[in-house]
Amino acid sequence: MYLTNKTKLKIIPLGGLNEIGKNMTVIEYGNDIIVIDCGLAFPDDEMLGIDLVIPDISYLLKNKEKVRAIVLTHGHEDHIGALPYVLRQLNVPVYGTRLTLGLVEYKLKENGLLRDSKLVTVKPRETVTFGQLKVEFIRTSHSIADSAALAIHTPVGVVFHSGDFKIDFTPIGGEVADFHRFAELGEQGVLVMMCDSTNIERPGYTMSEKTVGDTFDNIFRKAEQRIIVATFASNIHRVQQIIDSAYKYGRKVSISGRSMINVINVANELGYLSIPEGTLVDIDEANKLPYNEVVIITTGSQGEPMSALTRMASSEHKKVEIVPGDTVVISASAIPGNEKLISRVINQLFKKGAEVIYDALADVHVSGHACQEEIKLLHTLIKPQFFIPVHGEYRHLKQHAKLAEDLGMDPKNIFIADNGTVIEFTKNSGRIAGTVTAGKVLVDGLGVGDVGNIVLRDRKHLSQDGLLVVVVTISKEKGSVIAGPDIISRGFVYVRESEDLMEEAKNLVKETLSQCEKDDITEWSSIKTMIKECLSSFLYEKTKRNPMILPIIMEI
Amino acid sequence: MYLTNKTKLKIIPLGGLNEIGKNMTVIEYGNDIIVIDCGLAFPDDEMLGIDLVIPDISYLLKNKEKVRAIVLTHGHEDHIGALPYVLRQLNVPVYGTRLTLGLVEYKLKENGLLRDSKLVTVKPRETVTFGQLKVEFIRTSHSIADSAALAIHTPVGVVFHSGDFKIDFTPIGGEVADFHRFAELGEQGVLVMMCDSTNIERPGYTMSEKTVGDTFDNIFRKAEQRIIVATFASNIHRVQQIIDSAYKYGRKVSISGRSMINVINVANELGYLSIPEGTLVDIDEANKLPYNEVVIITTGSQGEPMSALTRMASSEHKKVEIVPGDTVVISASAIPGNEKLISRVINQLFKKGAEVIYDALADVHVSGHACQEEIKLLHTLIKPQFFIPVHGEYRHLKQHAKLAEDLGMDPKNIFIADNGTVIEFTKNSGRIAGTVTAGKVLVDGLGVGDVGNIVLRDRKHLSQDGLLVVVVTISKEKGSVIAGPDIISRGFVYVRESEDLMEEAKNLVKETLSQCEKDDITEWSSIKTMIKECLSSFLYEKTKRNPMILPIIMEI
Repeated sequence: MYLTNKTKLKIIPLGGLNEIGKNMTVIEYGNDIIVIDCGLAFPDDEMLGIDLVIPDISYLLKNKEKVRAIVLTHGHEDHIGALPYVLRQLNVPVYGTRLTLGLVEYKLKENGLLRDSKLVTVKPRETVTFGQLKVEFIRTSHSIADSAALAIHTPVGVVFHSGDFKIDFTPIGGEVADFHRFAELGEQGVLVMMCDSTNIERPGYTMSEKTVGDTFDNIFRKAEQRIIVATFASNIHRVQQIIDSAYKYGRKVSISGRSMINVINVANELGYLSIPEGTLVDIDEANKLPYNEVVIITTGSQGEPMSALTRMASSEHKKVEIVPGDTVVISASAIPGNEKLISRVINQLFKKGAEVIYDALADVHVSGHACQEEIKLLHTLIKPQFFIPVHGEYRHLKQHAKLAEDLGMDPKNIFIADNGTVIEFTKNSGRIAGTVTAGKVLVDGLGVGDVGNIVLRDRKHLSQDGLLVVVVTISKEKGSVIAGPDIISRGFVYVRESEDLMEEAKNLVKETLSQCEKDDITEWSSIKTMIKECLSSFLYEKTKRNPMILPIIMEI
Repeated sequence: MYLTNKTKLKIIPLGGLNEIGKNMTVIEYGNDIIVIDCGLAFPDDEMLGIDLVIPDISYLLKNKEKVRAIVLTHGHEDHIGALPYVLRQLNVPVYGTRLTLGLVEYKLKENGLLRDSKLVTVKPRETVTFGQLKVEFIRTSHSIADSAALAIHTPVGVVFHSGDFKIDFTPIGGEVADFHRFAELGEQGVLVMMCDSTNIERPGYTMSEKTVGDTFDNIFRKAEQRIIVATFASNIHRVQQIIDSAYKYGRKVSISGRSMINVINVANELGYLSIPEGTLVDIDEANKLPYNEVVIITTGSQGEPMSALTRMASSEHKKVEIVPGDTVVISASAIPGNEKLISRVINQLFKKGAEVIYDALADVHVSGHACQEEIKLLHTLIKPQFFIPVHGEYRHLKQHAKLAEDLGMDPKNIFIADNGTVIEFTKNSGRIAGTVTAGKVLVDGLGVGDVGNIVLRDRKHLSQDGLLVVVVTISKEKGSVIAGPDIISRGFVYVRESEDLMEEAKNLVKETLSQCEKDDITEWSSIKTMIKECLSSFLYEKTKRNPMILPIIMEI
């Protein structure tokens, strides 16, 4: 490609717009592409049987030779979770802060990809150069340690990406966001800002992580027996505060849940946790201690069916049995869609006699995302020429655009984009210039992208009213029925109580088949369609249900 | 039955405990049973394909001759929705206030049951006698007009049931709850109280319905084009306030959505709505008016897939097309589990250019249930000897019990019960005396109770990974394969891209069949099991999925 003064900067979101999750943004200038984040999303309710969703990276594969690196803002799954899938197709170096890469390393090791991957640790305020793009990492606060915003210095100006952030003047670990650098960038001039929209609908400020520590302190002071705290595994600062309270009140800490154990190991090895000697004990050891000397930190704060807390609540945990007197703290709020799962766990814990403390009853959680006033502060410091709201559904992007307008920005300079939208910039102009392929790739077991709309539609149909399989063996020569019809149903009715119905259905198919024979209809597809139609209307009339009907004809 | 002084009063909840919905409570004394409420519940996420859930009334059917009446507290579906199913098996008179019975009448007419049903209207402060049980209706406030609490006067004392309630000192329609009667009953002595626990986790007071009117007034004053308000059809007071604001700002009102039209018709006929002459117009007429003279009241405030608002948002509504400039008010909050549906509708409306106003952005909704301080007031007025928290999951019942204790009640006098628990009372004692059959009856189409755990388990299995049907025709004489194996899959993989996999699977079945022939295995069930096992492990290894495998053997 021939580079001229007219070369334009392209920003292309491939994920994270009009959705929560699977964040990924392409920054392209001439022959250089860098990719910000590489996240996964969790499936919607309609994506039956799907494990997770990753971005469609067709555009990156088509421009493979240009892609210099993936740069990560922080170590949450919605920012790093697609790496094992993406790196298999596009093996480029991955840049991030220490903890972020510690978590990535673990993930790649699990997937057998570590040996072939190149991970490069970057410190806050460090800048890495990729051709004509220079990426600077800048400290922020978030619900995971070592989160960063990015300033991408390009020949046409600075692109600022907030990453996920909040403003916390009293962060655990002590280092506040780098307001000075934000201010300096703003003063020097920022071409375009992309900013987290997650909490844009919430007025005011998100409380400091420290306030949760005060609540823990209160709970720990009063608890007379065992304490069990469930939280997000990646929230190292939360874990630190639990450990601090445990130490203060003379309790040992035991960890339960695979992801919790993994993250704590990684964070501890890298020095992101300060755990007093002898505080950590394994569950077997904890089980030998008096209850009032024990704290268990566990996964399951979203009521996830296979998580440690859910197993404790349903008496399926091998090592921990909930007993009256236990205090269980669910230190999280519900991610939309998980309300009922969490509620079920709370009910079960109460029934077992535990004291359960959750967000409706006490301040046991704060968000990791900025509310309106914090977002305003960032806009004001960065004062970008152009603005692209990111990380949110359309409602959030729209509200964020409104907030930017309220702060005085010209609506023409704000781009509410979609995944795949190409936004082009020069030094003093910005415009939507087209679209590239973007979308959701569904992961189901080992299959990546092999489950599409037809398969999902069938799963949905099967889930609602089950199915009937009709099998009949027909003579090739005579066209007459040799065996069957047999009817087998699953998920439709309770068969033992519906024998008459099934018998009637069978007779109906028989009649249809002899009608076909009489009318000399021998085309399989016609026979199948007739069986389907007669059965379908018969069953709907009798049951007001629409099972999937699968006619199978064997010919001999 | 021989009645003595020792006859005990029995209270048996058959629904509404440890769940939200399907409220039903049995009050039994000697030969007399009355049933309070007869509600339905909406299915949980795991109840795939189920339309609704009703209480198991085995106990009532076993004691058919004792059941004198069903008495209703108000006209919400979770209190009247099971009537069409229950009355078919147990045709007893139904008592309720005017609007409640107006809604019941409509429901029974729809189900062809009205002619054979006996509906008796009761006014607040009126008492109806059923043998030794006297039921008094007492006015309350709730998110539907004409709601009532019940005082059941029995030979051993008064049972007070709050129904669903809130305290609203400035109710729409003007009549406040009957505090004087509550106080009088309390003063005379109440044996046992059952009280709504829905909002027990919320501190403070629920705001008056009137505050929503103020918000409407604000919105209507500013809106320059059409206004569309979605709310719960049964919230007559909300509808009244929308009509009031419309009238004030010179707008005509049009109604969309079947249930909204029905409820407004019933309420209007019975005089529960005051609609100025000429204000209501049908949609076609409204479509001819200038946009700034139109308000549309519609269903769909929960994002229900087939509702009017959802169809407007997805351009599937026949009469209403959302256009830029429309103001859409979603006057409701999400019932847990509906968050994502609502969010999708909000996103779609914004994308069409509408201004969308919802609970995160403005005070467009208040709850119909009492918060902690209101509940405390009722406890204090009624000052019952015994207490049974009702209408809530276990977590709510537990918190409600705690609140009663905080108010000074002896924990021994509080019964956290379950559906089916028999609680027995004398004049000065209460105890849990056993259990009767209770549970969920699933309604799927015309089937009532014919979908049980096996069917649901199959639907769940099918929904996750689909199915494979394996058909083979075997000679009865020789035991050899004559036709097949054929393999058909649905909801498993995208077949065109998985031809190799299916071919391999077929070969594997062939091998298994010839192995069976060789080993002289002729038992069908053994052959089926072998096919299942070999396919299942093969497919899991290749795909990490577990489709349902249905082997079918035809014999000729």
